[in-house]
Amino acid sequence: MTGAVQESSVVSMRDLARWAAGIDPTSADLELAQRALIDTVTVTLAALDDPVAAWTDGLPAALRWATVGHVLDFDDLHIPSTTHISVVCVPATLAAGGGAREYLAAAGVMARLGSALGWNHYTQGWHSTATVGAIAAAVAAGLSLGLDSDGVATAMAHAVPAAGGVRQAFGTAGKPMQVGFAADAGVRAARLAAAGATADPRAVDEWFRLVGGRNSPQLAGPPIPDGLGLKLHPCCYALQRPITAIRSLGALPIDEIAGIRLHTPRSAVLPLIHDYPSTGLEGKFSLNYGIAATLLDGFPDITSFTDTAVQRPEVRSILDRIGLIADPEGDGVLAGNCRVTVEFSDGSQVEAVEELPMGHPRRPASSEDFEAKVRGCVGEERSGEVMTLDWLSAAELLRRCLPGSG
Amino acid sequence: MTGAVQESSVVSMRDLARWAAGIDPTSADLELAQRALIDTVTVTLAALDDPVAAWTDGLPAALRWATVGHVLDFDDLHIPSTTHISVVCVPATLAAGGGAREYLAAAGVMARLGSALGWNHYTQGWHSTATVGAIAAAVAAGLSLGLDSDGVATAMAHAVPAAGGVRQAFGTAGKPMQVGFAADAGVRAARLAAAGATADPRAVDEWFRLVGGRNSPQLAGPPIPDGLGLKLHPCCYALQRPITAIRSLGALPIDEIAGIRLHTPRSAVLPLIHDYPSTGLEGKFSLNYGIAATLLDGFPDITSFTDTAVQRPEVRSILDRIGLIADPEGDGVLAGNCRVTVEFSDGSQVEAVEELPMGHPRRPASSEDFEAKVRGCVGEERSGEVMTLDWLSAAELLRRCLPGSG
Repeated sequence: MTGAVQESSVVSMRDLARWAAGIDPTSADLELAQRALIDTVTVTLAALDDPVAAWTDGLPAALRWATVGHVLDFDDLHIPSTTHISVVCVPATLAAGGGAREYLAAAGVMARLGSALGWNHYTQGWHSTATVGAIAAAVAAGLSLGLDSDGVATAMAHAVPAAGGVRQAFGTAGKPMQVGFAADAGVRAARLAAAGATADPRAVDEWFRLVGGRNSPQLAGPPIPDGLGLKLHPCCYALQRPITAIRSLGALPIDEIAGIRLHTPRSAVLPLIHDYPSTGLEGKFSLNYGIAATLLDGFPDITSFTDTAVQRPEVRSILDRIGLIADPEGDGVLAGNCRVTVEFSDGSQVEAVEELPMGHPRRPASSEDFEAKVRGCVGEERSGEVMTLDWLSAAELLRRCLPGSG
Repeated sequence: MTGAVQESSVVSMRDLARWAAGIDPTSADLELAQRALIDTVTVTLAALDDPVAAWTDGLPAALRWATVGHVLDFDDLHIPSTTHISVVCVPATLAAGGGAREYLAAAGVMARLGSALGWNHYTQGWHSTATVGAIAAAVAAGLSLGLDSDGVATAMAHAVPAAGGVRQAFGTAGKPMQVGFAADAGVRAARLAAAGATADPRAVDEWFRLVGGRNSPQLAGPPIPDGLGLKLHPCCYALQRPITAIRSLGALPIDEIAGIRLHTPRSAVLPLIHDYPSTGLEGKFSLNYGIAATLLDGFPDITSFTDTAVQRPEVRSILDRIGLIADPEGDGVLAGNCRVTVEFSDGSQVEAVEELPMGHPRRPASSEDFEAKVRGCVGEERSGEVMTLDWLSAAELLRRCLPGSG
């Protein structure tokens, strides 16, 4: 009996392709897909002026959309697999003419492969979003092109050579480019499979082993197990929880604040290395600035993280009033909780304790907050159009804004 | 002093890019490049009817040329790095408008990276031609587009995510497709670097470590250390030496042959698994058929390895007269030597002993043999044109025969 259980837990890449071809989304899954679509298009439109848009001019649509979509690092993420799922799977689906079902199948493959490879794959140096992403993009595009599960497995095999992104690209334009390459490789792989190009799906199993896969991917659970984390604010994920805590206190009379104390595990603020930032990019990795921007702006959005915004005169006086108590324990940016205490000149104080940032899968963003993100990214005028996109109109919109070859 | 020597042996990928940008080819190097060009175009033209040509229709030129060029597995190879060098570096050079110098620099990077990764990279499961090839193709195209060594290093970094081919593709169309993906990734990477797309060259060093690199690549020696092995006959490399041995005996009176004995290490004939082949493909992996085809055809070429040729009635009677004595020792297809003894009906016998196949870098093919290969591949009529191609006219010819996008 034990033997049978063990055997059933070994899932080949053919099994995974078969799972993907056969998923049966619930209405909750379809809602998640819809939000992933809007979120991905939103953060892509917000980055149209980034140089990566010009560099990728003339290259395939999926490559451009994924690269531009990831350059702000503001797109959704799947925490157990350490991957940004939608910025790969949405562009690959859209470029190949697919919809929510194809997206969910690909996202599910990405979540499962990434979770099976685990944290070790990432810490070794692989850029999981790009490695697992290439395989997932082949699923997205393969199903969108109407391939059956054998065809999807072949497409996955054709995507294998492109599944080699590395983390050394982080902090450079190489990071979104690698994500773009992954999305593109998947679409190309699926088109080749659709054209009849044969390949051995066991190549995917071999790749999985070579990049450190020791545990088999598991098929159980909803399409995207544990859901997707949404970034509400365009800054480091470690800042999302402190911002949530400050926001929970409501609007505060800034002039009357005597001091702000933040109490959290050290690991939760480790990436936040700029106490006195002078640029918008530094502000994204500044605990103090994140707090100041929340006090000043209410809902920190893209305009809160420009150089100009960071250099506002009123920011400095707030920064000087902030203190951090970092406990030595902790493992990861969501370890423990985050306690914020605001003391006023009259001696009174308010306090908030948060375990999860708004937008975490177990603490979904309100539709107001999500709409605020969209408005901050695409502007008031365009936000109505973006909030009501479907998979067809989203592809048309991206084709207008970022035309690609093929 | 020892410290200084050790330090100088650590070569970063930036150093390798600098080496590539600064090579100074001798006339012997340029002759090798010219032969690589002719050989690659020759085996590409020989495969124009293969399905991979149709599957890759509409895809970039470098991808098509490399895929079609490798599908017969008849292209040259670099033995210490276990890579097919020219089928990656020639298409990438031609697609980007380069010539012999750019080819040699890229071939040198491929030889050095592949040798530094070593046999272990290959036996782990990586398809070295595709992994190292993507990086080398970026060098070929980068230099061809006029990038300096910093630009080439950036292009190498952009090629990293595509450097993930696996050996499980062997024996399927996935093998040449992976080679095509590698060539294409390099050209795309170089074009992106030329367009200004930034990337951290240390990504290449990280990739190198992740795919098993433990020793530093070394810069010493000619552009292609140890030269290139040329396949004279369109069959397994393990058959090249036995064919060389039989050919060295000159034309033999087949009807008077009583028996043929071949004596060689077991490892040298390990891939030759078909004693009585019935198809051309099986014939490529048949020691007995290789001997029969040499006796019948003199210089086995593409027409010797068709289904029809293998099924000739006269073949079977030769196969029945062949015996193999395989010594248990041996390590690789060129272990020990190969001794062929032919006994005639009148009791007389002739014998040949060969250590290296014709076409091995230390036993270069004669120009007559090379021309015979070209004629066998492209036909009598076209062989004159092919033998006199330069880098410009070769690109034009391939563009006519296998047009690609971009």
